[in-house]
Amino acid sequence: MKNHEGGENGAAMTLREYRRLVEEQLDSLMPPAGEPPSSLHEAMRYSVLGGGKRFRAMLCLSAHRLFGDPFPEAALRAACSLEMMHAYTLIHDDLPAIDDDDMRRGRASCHARYGEAVAILAGDALQALSFEVLSSCRGPEPSLCLEAVRILSRAAGSRMLVGGQVADIEAEGVDPDEEKVRFIHSRKTAELIAASMSIGGALAGAAPEQLAGIGGIGRKVGLAFQIVDDLLDIGGSERIVGKGLRKDSKRGKITWPACFGADASLKTAEGLIDESTAGIRRFGDAETLEYLFRLVIERVS
Amino acid sequence: MKNHEGGENGAAMTLREYRRLVEEQLDSLMPPAGEPPSSLHEAMRYSVLGGGKRFRAMLCLSAHRLFGDPFPEAALRAACSLEMMHAYTLIHDDLPAIDDDDMRRGRASCHARYGEAVAILAGDALQALSFEVLSSCRGPEPSLCLEAVRILSRAAGSRMLVGGQVADIEAEGVDPDEEKVRFIHSRKTAELIAASMSIGGALAGAAPEQLAGIGGIGRKVGLAFQIVDDLLDIGGSERIVGKGLRKDSKRGKITWPACFGADASLKTAEGLIDESTAGIRRFGDAETLEYLFRLVIERVS
Repeated sequence: MKNHEGGENGAAMTLREYRRLVEEQLDSLMPPAGEPPSSLHEAMRYSVLGGGKRFRAMLCLSAHRLFGDPFPEAALRAACSLEMMHAYTLIHDDLPAIDDDDMRRGRASCHARYGEAVAILAGDALQALSFEVLSSCRGPEPSLCLEAVRILSRAAGSRMLVGGQVADIEAEGVDPDEEKVRFIHSRKTAELIAASMSIGGALAGAAPEQLAGIGGIGRKVGLAFQIVDDLLDIGGSERIVGKGLRKDSKRGKITWPACFGADASLKTAEGLIDESTAGIRRFGDAETLEYLFRLVIERVS
Repeated sequence: MKNHEGGENGAAMTLREYRRLVEEQLDSLMPPAGEPPSSLHEAMRYSVLGGGKRFRAMLCLSAHRLFGDPFPEAALRAACSLEMMHAYTLIHDDLPAIDDDDMRRGRASCHARYGEAVAILAGDALQALSFEVLSSCRGPEPSLCLEAVRILSRAAGSRMLVGGQVADIEAEGVDPDEEKVRFIHSRKTAELIAASMSIGGALAGAAPEQLAGIGGIGRKVGLAFQIVDDLLDIGGSERIVGKGLRKDSKRGKITWPACFGADASLKTAEGLIDESTAGIRRFGDAETLEYLFRLVIERVS
C-alpha cells in the first residue's frame, strides 16, 4: 500500500497485514501446481497468484472489520473467494474471442501462456473454486454463509458481471452515451466491488438495512474505480499499469471519458469517493475503508 | 421417458411429471430473452431449454424422494441448478478451442449460433446462475442448502469436472490405458451425476453415511453413463444421438471401448448398473432411481 502521509498510519498497516494474509491463504487454498491435470492447476495459480491489488479482498476484510470483525477466518476465506472470482473474469475477458489481450499485469495473459482451451477451463474452475471456498467458511451461522453465496452468485451472473461484459463487447464502435456507459460500468465492475463489501458485512451478521447501505456505497466506489481505470487507459504509462493501453479507443470501447471528457470524469470519480467516504463514516470507525476509497483516486492523481 | 414394460408403470409416470416440472421451472428461473443484454439471455435460454434428457435433474428429484421428499420445491430448484451447470459445461466443451463441435442435440451449438464471445459468457453466467438458484432454495435448514452448494462446487471444480475435461483434451492422440480413461470419465461425467444424487439426498437431510453411500452409487451410474456415451459414439445413428458421431476416434479421444473393446465395455456398463441397482435398494423403495439406472443401459440395448 502506498503511504501518502509521511509516517505509516494504522489503516495502511492493517491493509498491509491483510494483504500478507490474503496472499498466504490464496496460496494454500489453490490446488498444488503438481496435482494433475497440472497444466490446469498451473494456469489457475499463475492467474490468481500473479499479483494484483487485492482491492476486493481488502474491501471484504475491511467491511467485516467495520462490523466488529467477529469471524476473521471466514472473512479471509471470503476475501480469497472474491479474488478467485475476479481472476476468472480477467482470464475470460482477455481471451481472443473477447478482448484479445496478450498482456496482463506486465506479463503474458493466461491464454497467451497456457493456450486458449486451458485458459477457458482455468477460468471455469476458478469460478467453481470461488463458490467452494465461500460455502466452506466456518464460524458464522450457515444462514450468513448462504447469504454470502447468494450475494456473490447474483453479482457474478448475467444480470450483473457477465451482462456488463456482454454489453461492453456489443457497444464497441457504437456512439457513447451515458445510459450505455452506466449500464456497462455498474455491471462489469461496480457490482463485484459492492458485493465484496456486502459479503464482509453479511458474514459479520450486519442487518439487511446495513447491508443495503454498504452495498450502495460499494457501487459508488466501484463506479469510481472503473472511471479511474478508463482514465488510466488514456493517460497512464504501460510500464506502470502493466497491460496494453489506449486499447479502449482502439477497439472503440465506450468509456466514461469518451462520454464526458477526462476532466469531468475525474471530478465525477472524486465526487463518488467523497460521497462514499461520508457515507461509510455513518457506520462507525471506518478508517481502513476510507483509506481504500482514497487509493482509488490516488491512482490518477 | 421410454416405456419398456407394456403398460406405463409408476416410476415412468413420476419421471414424466418430474420432467414437466423441471421444464416449467427452468423456463421461469431463466431471465427473459428480452432482458438486456438480450443476446446473452437468448443464448442462455437456447442452451438450457433446448431439450436434453434432464437425467441429472431426475436423479436429484428421485434421490430426494428416496429420503421421503420433505422439500419438493427446494429439490426442484436444485434439479434446475444441476441442469444449468450441465448446460454450461456443454457450451464450453463445444467451443472451437475445446471440442470444436458445431452441432448439439440436433441443432447448432451455442457458439455456432451466437458467436464465440457470447457462448463463453453464456456458459459463465449459467455457472453463476446454477449457484444462485441452489443457494436460494427455501425449506431445508440453511446448513443443508450450504452442504448442497459445497457438493456442487466441488463436483464442478478443477479436481473433478473441469479437471476431467482438461485431461480429456490432453489425452487426445495418446495411447489409451485404463488409468487415464478412469481418471477422465470419473471426473468429466461421473462426479456431477453423483452430485445430483447427493444433493437430492442432502436437501432431504440424509445422514453423512447415507450421502456417502448414494454418492458412491452415483459414481458407478455416472461411469456407466459415460461408457454408454462412448459406445453410442461408435455405434449410434447421428439422427438419433443428435450430434456428430465417431468424433472421438477422429480426434483420437481416449474412450472406454478404445481401451477394452465394445463388448467388454457394454458388459462393464451393465455390471455397474446392476451393482447400483442392488446398492440403491438397500435404502428403501427406490423404484424411480432403479428405472433411471436402467434407462442408461437401454440407450445401447
